[in-house]
This record gives sequence, structure tokens and C-alpha cells, in this order.
Amino acid sequence: MAKELSSRSENYAQWYNDLVLKADLAENSAVRGCMVIKPYGYAIWEKIQGELDRMFKETGHSNAYFPLFIPKSFLSKEAAHVEGFAKECAVVTHYRLKNSADGKSVIVDPEAKLEEELIVRPTSETIIWSTYKNWIQSYRDLPILVNQWANVVRWEMRTRLFLRTAEFLWQEGHTAHATKEEALEETEKMLGVYAEFAENFMAMPVIKGIKSANERFAGALETYCIEALMQDGKALQAGTSHFLGQNFAKAFDVKFQTKEGGEDYVWASSWGVSTRLMGALIMSHSDDNGLVLPPKLAPFQVVIVPIYKGEEQLTQISIRVKELISKLKTLSISVKYDDSDTRKPGWKFAEYELKGVPVRLAIGARDLENGTIEVARRDTLTKETVSIEGVETYIQTLLNDIQTTIYKKAFDYRASVTREVNSYEEFKIEIEKGGFLLCHWDGTTETEEKIKTDTKATIRCIPLDGDKTPGKCMVTGKPSAQRVIFARSY
Amino acid sequence: MAKELSSRSENYAQWYNDLVLKADLAENSAVRGCMVIKPYGYAIWEKIQGELDRMFKETGHSNAYFPLFIPKSFLSKEAAHVEGFAKECAVVTHYRLKNSADGKSVIVDPEAKLEEELIVRPTSETIIWSTYKNWIQSYRDLPILVNQWANVVRWEMRTRLFLRTAEFLWQEGHTAHATKEEALEETEKMLGVYAEFAENFMAMPVIKGIKSANERFAGALETYCIEALMQDGKALQAGTSHFLGQNFAKAFDVKFQTKEGGEDYVWASSWGVSTRLMGALIMSHSDDNGLVLPPKLAPFQVVIVPIYKGEEQLTQISIRVKELISKLKTLSISVKYDDSDTRKPGWKFAEYELKGVPVRLAIGARDLENGTIEVARRDTLTKETVSIEGVETYIQTLLNDIQTTIYKKAFDYRASVTREVNSYEEFKIEIEKGGFLLCHWDGTTETEEKIKTDTKATIRCIPLDGDKTPGKCMVTGKPSAQRVIFARSY
Repeated sequence: MAKELSSRSENYAQWYNDLVLKADLAENSAVRGCMVIKPYGYAIWEKIQGELDRMFKETGHSNAYFPLFIPKSFLSKEAAHVEGFAKECAVVTHYRLKNSADGKSVIVDPEAKLEEELIVRPTSETIIWSTYKNWIQSYRDLPILVNQWANVVRWEMRTRLFLRTAEFLWQEGHTAHATKEEALEETEKMLGVYAEFAENFMAMPVIKGIKSANERFAGALETYCIEALMQDGKALQAGTSHFLGQNFAKAFDVKFQTKEGGEDYVWASSWGVSTRLMGALIMSHSDDNGLVLPPKLAPFQVVIVPIYKGEEQLTQISIRVKELISKLKTLSISVKYDDSDTRKPGWKFAEYELKGVPVRLAIGARDLENGTIEVARRDTLTKETVSIEGVETYIQTLLNDIQTTIYKKAFDYRASVTREVNSYEEFKIEIEKGGFLLCHWDGTTETEEKIKTDTKATIRCIPLDGDKTPGKCMVTGKPSAQRVIFARSY
Repeated sequence: MAKELSSRSENYAQWYNDLVLKADLAENSAVRGCMVIKPYGYAIWEKIQGELDRMFKETGHSNAYFPLFIPKSFLSKEAAHVEGFAKECAVVTHYRLKNSADGKSVIVDPEAKLEEELIVRPTSETIIWSTYKNWIQSYRDLPILVNQWANVVRWEMRTRLFLRTAEFLWQEGHTAHATKEEALEETEKMLGVYAEFAENFMAMPVIKGIKSANERFAGALETYCIEALMQDGKALQAGTSHFLGQNFAKAFDVKFQTKEGGEDYVWASSWGVSTRLMGALIMSHSDDNGLVLPPKLAPFQVVIVPIYKGEEQLTQISIRVKELISKLKTLSISVKYDDSDTRKPGWKFAEYELKGVPVRLAIGARDLENGTIEVARRDTLTKETVSIEGVETYIQTLLNDIQTTIYKKAFDYRASVTREVNSYEEFKIEIEKGGFLLCHWDGTTETEEKIKTDTKATIRCIPLDGDKTPGKCMVTGKPSAQRVIFARSY
């Protein structure tokens, strides 16, 4: 099976698509641009959801649910929001079908036209702030720290599984605060949560930064982001956290009585990550043999394959395996025992390699005699035969090691393709090689646009950490406050 | 606050609506028929989801995700499905907005009309079976045991929070099997899961049964259901499980190679419960003071309110409370400590009563001296002062007792209004009093329709358990195989 994958060096885009399909993660559906997330892919998403949800709750947030539909007029209430936001949306105009004259199909009932069209939410700031108006009267009602797990639709013309789909799943946090400082603090706190999740769970190093005005979320005063680097040298924006100022409060007239008895508009943040993270996860670690999953997000961390001839051997092996499973479970290690008889061990080995299961155990009749078991790790593709006695703690250590190793590998790769570039001539050559380029920029949209037009590279972010030495813009020679990160991106 | 609720006897429907609003469970949104599920309501839904999801996984199911949109033509592929299913659907006809001529608003771009309209899923059989066609070739690919948590839209004209809304949240299981027996077994198994969940977690007694042909799901050969009885004597269908036969496999041409080398259409089931369960939960146990929640689904089972004068007393109390919280957590009891200084204890008492928190603890300076704490239970509204030493195990027992007590109360109520009725004259009188009426029926749709027209009562189900003695139809005198359950319903 694994042989059917394209190689990364040959055709990276094809390799990605092959992998998503063959590892049973997702596929295209009958509806243009909408994907089906298959059970194995969804199980990874559930792990992502579970960890993020826990982190949101630990930082004081609650979940809620707001309508799928947004009245069309809401979108134009916040000027920058409607101006900057893509207008490719799914529009509901009717609310009823009826039988066709021949009775063989259904048609849209022309009588059932909505007075005002409804937009399938591309993001929920407008419907949520129209709701918050009723929730907020006084400082006592603040802060509101709410998150929503939902589906959203943006009618993308060119779609790619997980990376860019018309419908996708995401979470969107929407918070309301009494002061600017508190809203800014929240915006930055959630960026920190995203970065911690990306690094500790996805094993994906990210750079925290601020978007240039050009790349800012429509309606935000400031957009914070985490940027990751894929194996092909292209950047991927993995999460954003927006400081919305009082823009949406003003658009929906959400005022509150302050502690001091005055009146003010409410301050806001919003922040989100989506099923796009699945694409980032896949591209961060996988190889030409298939998926490589970090143990902390693998639907099952260990798979056990019995090697046997006949029922009696299988019975003997299964007794030993079940003892081991119970020990692994005590250590909170998730495990699948694949004793199905419809497939041969070789097929199973290839299958679980393709699916990125971190550790594969194989046990046969000779292992029973010798008290051994074969342990194979997915990330390095190495294997060894060890004593089955105490192997559970060995596996526990191994899983931690895999988590650390793949993070380090991704980190080292990123470091190897991150470099400072000082002239625009050099930039044009270097950008073709991929990676993060640290360059001085004069802070203007014109220069940013020129670079984009010339080279297809964009400013991924103005990094929050690291070198803050001023310099001169590589294009115009004008002053630059600090180096920013350029890359081509997903 | 609680005083603002209408009483049940005065106006049951108003009481329900007041309660949903005032207990912060949900509210109507700016979009007709769509609700906002508020954080406290959503926290209950998350408990419901968590338990059901665990039960689905324990019975071998995996989650997946299918598109929000269904091509219009798909709906007419299964004849009975399109015929019987309500055609009140949200229809997407366009995919782009543009600025209006005056630049002040957005309009639908007439150029961006879809070739084929898309329907926002009212249920997903069609899109899922069009997908399963690609997943199933051989008996080795079966069974498929998939569930989806999703939002669905049915354009209801008269909506009520949770009970009937245009958009609602639900889960829909869709399974594929090699044999009729296996598909039927699955249909019944999931009905059992729903019944177990309703009784053990929601503390809501239900009757398992089969729907009459008239009330069957459009496209199913048989619809199983669980029926509950609300405090106003009206029935509520709490979950359905459909045996779909080979109808959808035939409509979408899903065949498989059998183990014996032949070819056959795949057998199917589908099953679902929705946020309607929230309505059932609220109406099963709550009283004129507010919500009464079963401990197993309460967002927090215990609330602790300190009664203090001044910071120093609060500090002393908080030390004692924090010890108790840590003991409660060891016993997996969820607890909220409300030491906020913006509200008085009396306000808090009323608030948590309204919100149905099963156990409320109050502790003041005198309690500290005496080593006591006040324990109030929500269901009976009784309270007592007990020693704080070992109170955690006392509370554990109390929570179990509340769970059992409210189930028993609902069970006894149902028993008190469930009776056999033998003549149609009697039926017309009895149906006005509410409750479940066990009657003989001749099995025809005509008779069922007549009864519905005359009395607004429907057959809730043909019960699976209980008395199976044959008799004569109360309306026509024709033979009846067993008594069926009639009621007016939500």
C-alpha cells in the first residue's frame, strides 16, 4: 500500500493528497469543496478538540452555540469587516422545496423566498455581538469568555483537503471585556495557548507574531498568529487571535455601565483554529511511507499484530497480549490489538505504517518461547526485539521519546531553512529555496505588495520574540524597526 | 428571581419558556427559529454528549463528519424519503455577495448562482449513502458503524426553544451491514442505548416501542422509538432508531460482494437524538422554583456559598471550603465555590435553585466554630445542618439518592397517568386529562388518522414490552394484536 504514495521530492502536493486519501483521513464529497472527514481522520481531530477544549476551560472559558445563519444585513454593520472579508459565502434564499410537475424530482418553491437572505456563517463575530448586546448591561456581566465549536463555510474556489475547504470545522472564541488592557491580555493569552498546543501536542514548532496591516483580520485592530513551517519550505498559519478593540461593540451598540458609573463600549477578542491544523499536523512529520503522528494525538499509540499459524497459536499469543494490554492501559497508553484473520501480518504492518501509529508490536510463537516481543517505532522505522517483561514501561518511555524526537526534527529542519537576508536581490534567489527569511521591511503596505507581486512571498508575521535590532528595508532602504518573517505560504 | 417564573399549573408552556430563559439555558436569536444555546445550557448538552459518545464508542462506533450541504437531486433518489420528509428546508442558491451600488450594504451577486441548489442537511442519509458507495465493495468492508455529531436545519414554522427549532444539534448514527439480521440487531441495540441513557442519566423513564406506519421515518422499514411523558401529561419522543432495510443502498446503488461470492445490496440503520433531549430533561423534573437536574448531568453537582462578614471571615471559611473541595474532587464530585462579592447569599441561593444545582452547601462563621455545614438538596428543597467531618461521603450518597429519587418520582407520576381505556367514548374524555392511554387499535392508518382528527392524540408507539393480549379496536371493533400507547404529544 505504502508504495502507492507519491514521494515528497517528486511531487509534494500529490504526496499530501495521496496520504490524506490512503491513510483514510478525508476525501472529497459529492458537494464541491466540501470534504468528508473519515473515522480515522476524525479520531485525530477529536484528540485535538479534546486537548484544546481542556486548555480553554482551564483558562476560564465556557462553550456555547450560536446560529449557523447570519442575516445578510449584519455583515455590513462593521465597515472594515464587510470590506475586508471575502464575500464568497453560501447564501440561503429560500426555505421550501416542492415536487416538480412530473412528480419525479423536487424544485425550489418560488413562493418560499426569504425576505432577507441568510448567510451561512463564514465566522460569527456579527451574530455573536448582536447577541452579546442582550447579555451585557453592567461591568458585573463582564468578562464574557465564550468559545464555540462549529462548522463554517467560505466558498473557496480552489480547495485542498483540510488546508482549504468550503466547509470546515473550527472553534471560535469570542470574549468581551471592560477594558482594553484585559482584552489585549486575553488575545495574547490565547495565542499562548495555541502555541503551547502546537508545540507540546502537535510537536510542531511555531513562531508567535503579529500580522502586518495587510494580513490583519477584517475588523480587528491587531491580529496575532502562530506560523509553522512545512517540510516543503512553505509556511502555514496555524492559528490566529484577534484584538478587536471596540469595533464590533460599536457596530452592534454594546455598551456597559462601568464600575465608576460611566458608560463605555465593550472591548473584544476573537480567536480560532480549524481542521486546517490537520493539514499542518500531516505535513509536519510524515514521510514517504505515510503518516507520522505525535503520540499525544494518535487515536491509538500502540498497535499489536500477532504472527501465528493456526487457532491454537493465536490463542496462546492472545493470552499474553491481553496481559500486556491491561498493563499498557494502566499507564494510560491507548492500544489496538489487530487479530483480524482477513489480512496477513505484512498487510497490517504496511497499513499501520501508513496510518502513522507511533509504536507497533509484533509477537509470534518464537517470542512466546523466548519471552520477547518486537517493538517498531514509526518515526525512525527502526525495530528491536526486547523482553516482554516490563515492556510496558519501555513503551511509555519510547512514546515520550518519539514525541520529543519528532518535535526536535521539525525544529532542526526549521532552523536549517530560517536565515537572515539583507538585499532584495538575494531575497529573490533565496525565496525560491523555501523556508523563513528574516528581513528588514519599511512597514508599508506598498512595499509588502511589491514583494508579493514580485516573488509570491508574504510577511508571515512580525515576530514577538527574538532579535529586535532595527535596520533598513531591503527594498526601499527606509528605516525598519525589526526583522520580519517572509515566506511563501499555504 | 425564582418568583418571576410562571407556575406550571397556571401556564405550563409559559413556565417552560420562562425557565429556559431565566435559568440561562437558551434564548431566541436574531434569526427566526434558530436558538442561541447559552453556556449553562450548553454545559448540560456537553454532559449529554459526553455520556452518549462514550456509550456509542463502547458499542463499537466511530465518529466521522459529512458535508453540511446536500445536492438537491440527492433528496429525490429515495422515493419514500422525499415524499414523506418535510420539504421545509434551507436552500442555498448563490455563493457570493457583492457591494451594493451605494457601497453601504451587500447584495447577493446574481452572477453567482449555483447550477444545482444545495440543501442544508435536514438529516444525512442521502449524502452519507452516496459516500458509502465508495467505501463498500466487499463483505470485508462491513459493518460500517459511524456516528456524526452535527447541526441540522428543518424550517419549522412554529418553534419552541429546544423542543422544535429550525436549527438544532444532534447525533446521527448511520450503519451498514451485510445482513438484514445484523442491521435489525443494530437498530434495536441503539434503541437500548438510548433507553439506558434516558433512564440512568436523565432519570427519565421511557417506553420502548415501534412507530405505526404513519409515524415512521420517511425511507425506513421500521422506526423504533423511546417515548417519555412530561409533567403536563403530554408525550415526548426522545429518540428514534430506524431499520432502513436496503432502501438507501438501492437508491445510491451500494452493493457488496458477499462472503459466498455473490452480490447484494447493503442493509442499513440510522438513529438519532437531538438537543430536544434538553427540553425533555427540563420538563421531566423541574418545578415552580426552577430547574431540577439529575446529578449525573449537572454541569456542577454541588455549589458552596460562604456566609460571611468581612474579609477575615471569608478567608477562614475559604480555607475550610478548599479542604472540602479537594475531598469532593477525589470522589469525582464536581463543585463550584461561589465566593464572588458582587452578590449576596440570598441572591445566590435563588440563582442556584433556579439553575437546578443538585446540592447546595452553605457555611458561615458559626459553622466554623461548630464544625458544621448546611446541606440543601434541590429536588426536595429540604436542608439540614451536618458535621463537616466526612460530609463528602454524605454528599456522595446524597447525589446518588437524588438521582434515584427523581427517577422514581417521574416513574410514579407516569404510572399514575397511564391507564387502559376500552371504549372510544371513554377515550375522548380521558385524553383531555393527559397521560398515556393503552388502547386496542385495528392497525390501520385510517383509524389512527380519525383518532388524531377527533382528539389530537397520536399513537406514540406499539410497546415492545408489557401486555401482549389481543383484543378489539376501540373505534372499529376490528381485531387488535395488542394495546398501543396513545397520547397528545410535543
